Amino acid sequence: MKWIKTTLVTVIFIKVFCLSAKADDGHQLWLKKQNPFPVNIICAKKSPVLDIAIKELKDGWNGTPDATVTLQLKPVKSIKDDGFLLENSRVSANSELGILYGVYELLRRQATGQTVNHILSNPSYRQRILNHWDNLNGTVERGYAGHSIFWRNEKDSLTITPGDKTLWNEYARANASIGINGTVLNNVNASPLILTAGYLKKVKIIADVLRPYGVKTYLSVNFSSPVKIGGLKTADPLDPDVKRWWKEKIQEIYKLIPDFGGFLVKANSEGQPGPQDFGRTHVDGANMMADALKPYHGIVMWRAFVYSPSDQDRVMQAYSEFLPFDGQFRENVIIQVKNGPLDFQPREPFSPLFGGMKKTAVMPELQITQEYLGRSIHLVYLSPMWEECLKSDTYQKGPGSTVAKYTDGSMQYQKYTAIAGVANIGLDTNWCGHHFAQSNWYAFGRLAWNNNRSSADIAEEWLKLTFHESKSEFINPVKSMMMNSREAAVNYMMPLGLHHIFAEGHHYGPSPWFSDQKLRADWTSVYYHKADAKGIGFNRSATGSNAVSQYHEPFSTQLNNIETCPEIYLLWFHHLPWDYKMKSGRILWDELCYHYNQGLNQVREFQKTWDLVQPYVDPQRFSEVQSKLRRQCRDAQLWKDACLLYFQQFSQRPIPFEIERPVHDLKYLINTPAADIRH
Amino acid sequence: MKWIKTTLVTVIFIKVFCLSAKADDGHQLWLKKQNPFPVNIICAKKSPVLDIAIKELKDGWNGTPDATVTLQLKPVKSIKDDGFLLENSRVSANSELGILYGVYELLRRQATGQTVNHILSNPSYRQRILNHWDNLNGTVERGYAGHSIFWRNEKDSLTITPGDKTLWNEYARANASIGINGTVLNNVNASPLILTAGYLKKVKIIADVLRPYGVKTYLSVNFSSPVKIGGLKTADPLDPDVKRWWKEKIQEIYKLIPDFGGFLVKANSEGQPGPQDFGRTHVDGANMMADALKPYHGIVMWRAFVYSPSDQDRVMQAYSEFLPFDGQFRENVIIQVKNGPLDFQPREPFSPLFGGMKKTAVMPELQITQEYLGRSIHLVYLSPMWEECLKSDTYQKGPGSTVAKYTDGSMQYQKYTAIAGVANIGLDTNWCGHHFAQSNWYAFGRLAWNNNRSSADIAEEWLKLTFHESKSEFINPVKSMMMNSREAAVNYMMPLGLHHIFAEGHHYGPSPWFSDQKLRADWTSVYYHKADAKGIGFNRSATGSNAVSQYHEPFSTQLNNIETCPEIYLLWFHHLPWDYKMKSGRILWDELCYHYNQGLNQVREFQKTWDLVQPYVDPQRFSEVQSKLRRQCRDAQLWKDACLLYFQQFSQRPIPFEIERPVHDLKYLINTPAADIRH
Repeated sequence: MKWIKTTLVTVIFIKVFCLSAKADDGHQLWLKKQNPFPVNIICAKKSPVLDIAIKELKDGWNGTPDATVTLQLKPVKSIKDDGFLLENSRVSANSELGILYGVYELLRRQATGQTVNHILSNPSYRQRILNHWDNLNGTVERGYAGHSIFWRNEKDSLTITPGDKTLWNEYARANASIGINGTVLNNVNASPLILTAGYLKKVKIIADVLRPYGVKTYLSVNFSSPVKIGGLKTADPLDPDVKRWWKEKIQEIYKLIPDFGGFLVKANSEGQPGPQDFGRTHVDGANMMADALKPYHGIVMWRAFVYSPSDQDRVMQAYSEFLPFDGQFRENVIIQVKNGPLDFQPREPFSPLFGGMKKTAVMPELQITQEYLGRSIHLVYLSPMWEECLKSDTYQKGPGSTVAKYTDGSMQYQKYTAIAGVANIGLDTNWCGHHFAQSNWYAFGRLAWNNNRSSADIAEEWLKLTFHESKSEFINPVKSMMMNSREAAVNYMMPLGLHHIFAEGHHYGPSPWFSDQKLRADWTSVYYHKADAKGIGFNRSATGSNAVSQYHEPFSTQLNNIETCPEIYLLWFHHLPWDYKMKSGRILWDELCYHYNQGLNQVREFQKTWDLVQPYVDPQRFSEVQSKLRRQCRDAQLWKDACLLYFQQFSQRPIPFEIERPVHDLKYLINTPAADIRH
Repeated sequence: MKWIKTTLVTVIFIKVFCLSAKADDGHQLWLKKQNPFPVNIICAKKSPVLDIAIKELKDGWNGTPDATVTLQLKPVKSIKDDGFLLENSRVSANSELGILYGVYELLRRQATGQTVNHILSNPSYRQRILNHWDNLNGTVERGYAGHSIFWRNEKDSLTITPGDKTLWNEYARANASIGINGTVLNNVNASPLILTAGYLKKVKIIADVLRPYGVKTYLSVNFSSPVKIGGLKTADPLDPDVKRWWKEKIQEIYKLIPDFGGFLVKANSEGQPGPQDFGRTHVDGANMMADALKPYHGIVMWRAFVYSPSDQDRVMQAYSEFLPFDGQFRENVIIQVKNGPLDFQPREPFSPLFGGMKKTAVMPELQITQEYLGRSIHLVYLSPMWEECLKSDTYQKGPGSTVAKYTDGSMQYQKYTAIAGVANIGLDTNWCGHHFAQSNWYAFGRLAWNNNRSSADIAEEWLKLTFHESKSEFINPVKSMMMNSREAAVNYMMPLGLHHIFAEGHHYGPSPWFSDQKLRADWTSVYYHKADAKGIGFNRSATGSNAVSQYHEPFSTQLNNIETCPEIYLLWFHHLPWDYKMKSGRILWDELCYHYNQGLNQVREFQKTWDLVQPYVDPQRFSEVQSKLRRQCRDAQLWKDACLLYFQQFSQRPIPFEIERPVHDLKYLINTPAADIRH
């Protein structure tokens, strides 16, 4: 039977090896050009947004030839914000942007073979925003897809070419097609220069390109801008001159960009300036800016990613620092909270600020760029990770108080609801470096629109649109690969609740041994895994740092109890002996070995999956993905070898003999920094 | 069941992880010091050789305490050459050396738990010789265990320290213990300087150290020595001055070393000078030297490793060149023939000169150093390869005319019988680089003494002596690993008769793509595999080069016929289509893939085997071998990936999907020369 299967596949393979499809560089993302059927469009109004909607319909119509479609712009009660209603041959919305989103949904449903009869669709969040960590010199912090699409090197960062505008237009269209309606153009570690006249002029030009697609422009600002570029002696948020400076600066911005979205602020975090430098609080800082933005309906997204070299467990600090301010922030301030309490690890429990703050608007910050998940080299579909967070129960108002409901306003009123994703976009031809990294951009948009959607559905949709192939022989295995890819990464990097054992700085390869007396402890790996002869893990139970206390009951008790703590978070919350008996019946050490080994084997399976679907994929994307999967496999081996051999020094136990042996020496892995970033 | 097994092993492992044995650097080889019982020795004669025999007995006696052993030196008819007879408490021999060999056998049997009752043992070959490819500057050609034990850098190559003499003494003892009775001290690519007075003086000192152990000294000589160091205008072997020069030089040597063994000559081969430079033949050259050596009972070992940039298939050339001279060589000339017709490949059919020459003494040249078999990095036990050659049937005198019988004088009279092994010995503490490479030195000696012995028995003997551990839990798995290791190397390097697709020069990593218009074709890889869209393999059948015709019937016809040609030699003799149906039912391409993959998996199994016997091995040797097995595994992956991806360009077929995918890109492998020799 197996043999017959192979033979059949072989036949298909040979066929395709010979007549290979046209190469595809991936630049068109999920918006590949169609050969459309003719369509008649009725639209009572004309505007730049509606013109785009009409053009998209004409360019992409795949329904009944010569059908008539009405774009109807009039208030419908069930439609909220920029939502829409799809009926037989009609797209209804309360806003022009709603019409555009409806058209994209209509075309998407045609392209993916879904019905289009009476679909009401409202966005989960009002603001669905990309955060670009783009520096003004053109580099992108944690960017793995080339330089910034907005900024060049410092010398001619202000130059704008026709090519730039074309790219920004494509970028805006891609975002609009998945419902993203805002973008922060510069890094949260913000240069004060962004607020100088020259840069603001360029921001205006970018905003003009993005506007017809409904993508609002936001900026990250440096809290000490009044000093650095304003010539003031202080940036104290209570200082009248400082307040005036920000008021005038904001006025200047809105003159250029009337629909400017607002500010993103990283303050008193990792060396960035903030109100605490002047003895003030996050509230003082955020509210001062919020007041200045309010007349223009601008918002402040104030990041909660703060931690200091204190003795307190790092994962507890954001909660400790922000919770006392609950209820004191202005209505147009939203606290932007990373999904987990640490820093975008392959797996974290949700941040306790979700459910913690009760009278403050809170928005999730997700990371689309794969800082800790294999850069643009590993195939990791992130949507299941985000879904895991959004569907986590905070228990704030009893069972069912999910992070999704907590943040989208359905549990408690927030004037502004929002979600942010740190972009994985750069100048690479395919935008994201890895062809499959496009799916993360796509999934972020789709989840931001509907935070209840299943990652599997999004994956299927993306695959069909991106590879123009709906055959189950292609969709099923590749969707399955995507759906398993995040768990595979957790397995080969940091299973069972392990976290932050990356090589310092580049956050790509394994470095569980990393320790440096000169650095603060919570920047080292040993701080997090705490492996010793007795066992491994960070005790955050009541007998340890008591981070579990930051969660609501009954989750807090569930986490605190070794028996009930989910094994996926086990070593996040507990330090356990090497021979601790797991639910599988194996001891902890063996279980750890099995997870690392399984991660490697999962990547090997991904390789097979991909090779098997070669007949359905154009040769360029096929071979580029194939090559990256090979590297991912080598990397998974490095991770497995490094972590097992390192931890074995403490466990003093054999790797179970059913498991393939490591193929590298620990000494080599420790002494060869190049090994984990080689190409 | 599996689980229980693992748990048990785990328990053993933990025990050993804690109380690890004393480190062992491997320097003592298979002659580890014992705590002997007292023994009484009766020996009528005194001599340096007998003194050693007595000392060895006293230092290593492991039989009944206070037993009495008689060393009896008197002619026994059944004993030949330096053979011996072991009886109850008596070692009998015709020669002092026979007594010494008998003592070593007695002690070996005690140490390995074998009976010692009436053992008659005669050597298969009179001369059992190591060939050191040591250059006078201290480097060793194809040596992977450090510099020469005989020569230093050119500046003080003639210096001799007490440490040198100790080492040579240990070397001589190790050789004597396994019956090796000769050594060629310098490279076959011989510097003429070896015959100058200074070097000969050092040779004499070395010979003096080796003599009591019965190890005779030989030298490789440069055929043009009379010109290069003798000041003559020619080295023409028929020139009277040249003859005189050699005669006098030989006289000079024998004055220093009365038991000097003779010369090894590489003539008219790979750029070395030879009689053909003067219009003379191999016969002219060899016989001239033989005549000069005859008065001293010296011999000439004349190498048949010749090939020229002619159009003739390289593997046929030695046969073509030497066969016409059959019967014309002097009695004290032995033609030294490599096991296969090409050059020490992982697998070759035997050279057709075995069985081809009918009136000429022929000796096998085996390569102990792993030039083409993973250097001192890969664990490859070579004895099964040698056994395969020795037991091959030449059919010269009908079935049963094995290479062993053909060369050891039992089929046809040869005054001198001999066998040579190219040494794998250097200054490394453990002599051979890899602890398991010692087994190849050992096995060569044991097979040279008895060319009918089984490699498995030799492996078991070596393991017990070397690791001082006789438990079946150790012996059985490790012996099995050794016995499978050569086939594993064939699988991951060159299965199904593929050959010489190594990277040029270093002969370590894969380079099936190697081709260079500037080089002679038979130095490239493509010359040997001849892969194209139609298939792969070298057609040496009657429709091709007709190399099969050099073998006797019925082997010749068996090889010529695709249906009967053994699959292990298939691509050596035939160019076959990618879809040729193999005996397994698979097509050739798939079979090739399975072999490469199996090779990799075999090495992974070796890793497990070794990890499992950790309780039985001292920590130093355990971890050194463990580390090398890891590299071997990575190398096997490189081989598999390189060969499958390269050949796939021609086969245009998928790697069967049951098989793990390659993890490297072909482009990377081709463009990264460092990759295949990285550490």
